Amino acid sequence: MLTGGPSSTGGVNRGPLLTEVGVVGAGPVGLAIAWRCAQRGLRVAVHDDRPGSGASQVAAGMLAPVAEAYFGERELTALLVDSAARWPGFAAELAGASGVDLGYRTEGTLVVGLTADDLAEAGRLWSYQRGLGLPITPLRPSALRDREPALATRVRGGAVAPGDHQVDPRRLVTALRVAAERAGVVFRPARVGALSEVDARVMVVAAGCGAAALTGLPVRPVKGQVLRLRAPGGGPPGFRHVIRGYADGEPVYLVPRDSGEVVVGATVEERADTEVTADGVLRLLRAAVELVPELTEYELVEAAAGLRPGTPDNAPVLGALPGRPGVLAATGHHRHGIVLTPVTADLLTDLIVTGEPDPALAPFTPDRFPKEPLWN
Amino acid sequence: MLTGGPSSTGGVNRGPLLTEVGVVGAGPVGLAIAWRCAQRGLRVAVHDDRPGSGASQVAAGMLAPVAEAYFGERELTALLVDSAARWPGFAAELAGASGVDLGYRTEGTLVVGLTADDLAEAGRLWSYQRGLGLPITPLRPSALRDREPALATRVRGGAVAPGDHQVDPRRLVTALRVAAERAGVVFRPARVGALSEVDARVMVVAAGCGAAALTGLPVRPVKGQVLRLRAPGGGPPGFRHVIRGYADGEPVYLVPRDSGEVVVGATVEERADTEVTADGVLRLLRAAVELVPELTEYELVEAAAGLRPGTPDNAPVLGALPGRPGVLAATGHHRHGIVLTPVTADLLTDLIVTGEPDPALAPFTPDRFPKEPLWN
Repeated sequence: MLTGGPSSTGGVNRGPLLTEVGVVGAGPVGLAIAWRCAQRGLRVAVHDDRPGSGASQVAAGMLAPVAEAYFGERELTALLVDSAARWPGFAAELAGASGVDLGYRTEGTLVVGLTADDLAEAGRLWSYQRGLGLPITPLRPSALRDREPALATRVRGGAVAPGDHQVDPRRLVTALRVAAERAGVVFRPARVGALSEVDARVMVVAAGCGAAALTGLPVRPVKGQVLRLRAPGGGPPGFRHVIRGYADGEPVYLVPRDSGEVVVGATVEERADTEVTADGVLRLLRAAVELVPELTEYELVEAAAGLRPGTPDNAPVLGALPGRPGVLAATGHHRHGIVLTPVTADLLTDLIVTGEPDPALAPFTPDRFPKEPLWN
Repeated sequence: MLTGGPSSTGGVNRGPLLTEVGVVGAGPVGLAIAWRCAQRGLRVAVHDDRPGSGASQVAAGMLAPVAEAYFGERELTALLVDSAARWPGFAAELAGASGVDLGYRTEGTLVVGLTADDLAEAGRLWSYQRGLGLPITPLRPSALRDREPALATRVRGGAVAPGDHQVDPRRLVTALRVAAERAGVVFRPARVGALSEVDARVMVVAAGCGAAALTGLPVRPVKGQVLRLRAPGGGPPGFRHVIRGYADGEPVYLVPRDSGEVVVGATVEERADTEVTADGVLRLLRAAVELVPELTEYELVEAAAGLRPGTPDNAPVLGALPGRPGVLAATGHHRHGIVLTPVTADLLTDLIVTGEPDPALAPFTPDRFPKEPLWN
């Protein structure tokens, strides 16, 4: 087992350690690591004064490695594809272990363009994605509307990514907490101001944006505003696929849930506040109703903002912190925290148990960033 | 004093009556009547399980007899003008009696049109209003922008109604409750399901939309959705006047408060629910930012819907119910409840004290509607 810190250096007798793995942060990533480690027989404690209160509370839960595959991010795309492939098994196992329905749905994703310009922009990306061998198939407008009659007649065209699924992130957090508790994970409901407060042989910093202050890693908050609508009459939404679109240059996604909820997101803003603004709500609503006009009749039940942990290269930070024995990072997941939860948990748990990093972690190690004065 | 009901018919000794005036409904109208009656030495009780929870909670508080003067509503306009003239004295007296700042502001109202079509529509109404001798003055675009530089450069023109003021309805309710209590009014925090539950010599039904079920009056709910924005940085909004406008055919108003709040309203929907909808929010935000672009940067702090008590002729119902001795109505104020509060309170109190209706009440008597089966 990978160990580190003062307690592993021998010599000083600090008494019996209660915790082998201390996870800082009870979002999906931290909880999944804790659950996996406990399944491997490790004694695990999760430290968080407000579990599940971070970015996952606002996240839509798209599991979209294809639609999220972006120019110049091949290594990230490979990790997204890897993790998405783990999702069906992960979801089934977690639902079984927790008894919680995750809202995992496999109808797939439609990517659409409202105008000719929007379609041209989307088409460039589809070509790139198809060039990587990813499953995305352009559809004739008639075929698009056959799949989703709720789409506006103005929508010029689209494509289907059948393997891009969805899950409900709030249910995911609930399920992970239950499963982790059942597996023996201990929860410590206190805020961690410094890693020295955590008494464990291995520490995992899965604190989202909070990782910056705890580790000096270049993780910055990227604000996202998200709306939750509800279909009238208590029924499900009038469409089944996740719909991602460009509407007059405005990117938007619509995630329908069985409960009648539709998540509409998300702005991407280089800001650290969590205010909901007139501009954010207006842009999201305008784009949403342009793509799916029936949404005008929906109730607006929530408008919220969260902070994604962004990194200089938009990829997560996974692995041992240089110069900090026994401290691992699992943060910087930016817009991909939900889809990357299974692979992050599996690879970090393997690293903790074996002490050896999986080669898949190589592109994401914490030491890939130049050291700055902030590092400590 | 006007009296009625079983207790005034003599004969049966029901013991000493505790209450001379029972007011059903603790919105601004009911509270102001109760306060005025208590000032005249009457024993008053106000019955409401949720004081101040009705339309006033959502209202913007424009005191706008001129901008609200509409074709074919001359008698209502006269009442609005009468009440607006009472507002300065009413506000000063109430602030003194309660110690509560009402947020009463006298910068006046600008009425603007975004497009040439919007301006043409507004101009027709200004001509009508000026024909009635009401103070509204068209402004050159340069003069309009001198008064409010925050207006979009696209705004084609406007007019100023210097006598159309504003008050904060939530503060108004607070002030009226304090003043009424100090004047000896008793509050009974129970829901009134039927007038027979109220033991008083005179009853005043000031229950907004609830008056329909209590009296059979043709009062219907008219839904309004309203947003509350907040200026960034903790300062006041970047404009001082109330701004009423037409933006691509969409009517909207913007009411700035010293606290930094801007009320954006309001939809007018023939519905009885209080759901906030995507369409309502989208229309209000779009119109608002088209007139005052800086609002895009404002925080959206609240989206809510309320139900105005509408009547067949859009005018309030004020006076004795036919066939119901001792029962008075003070409801049906529709979009004008705040501005009409002083005149309603004064005229109803005079009627209760003297037993004689003021001639100004004649156009608004409850018996002006044809009887329907619902009447009881």
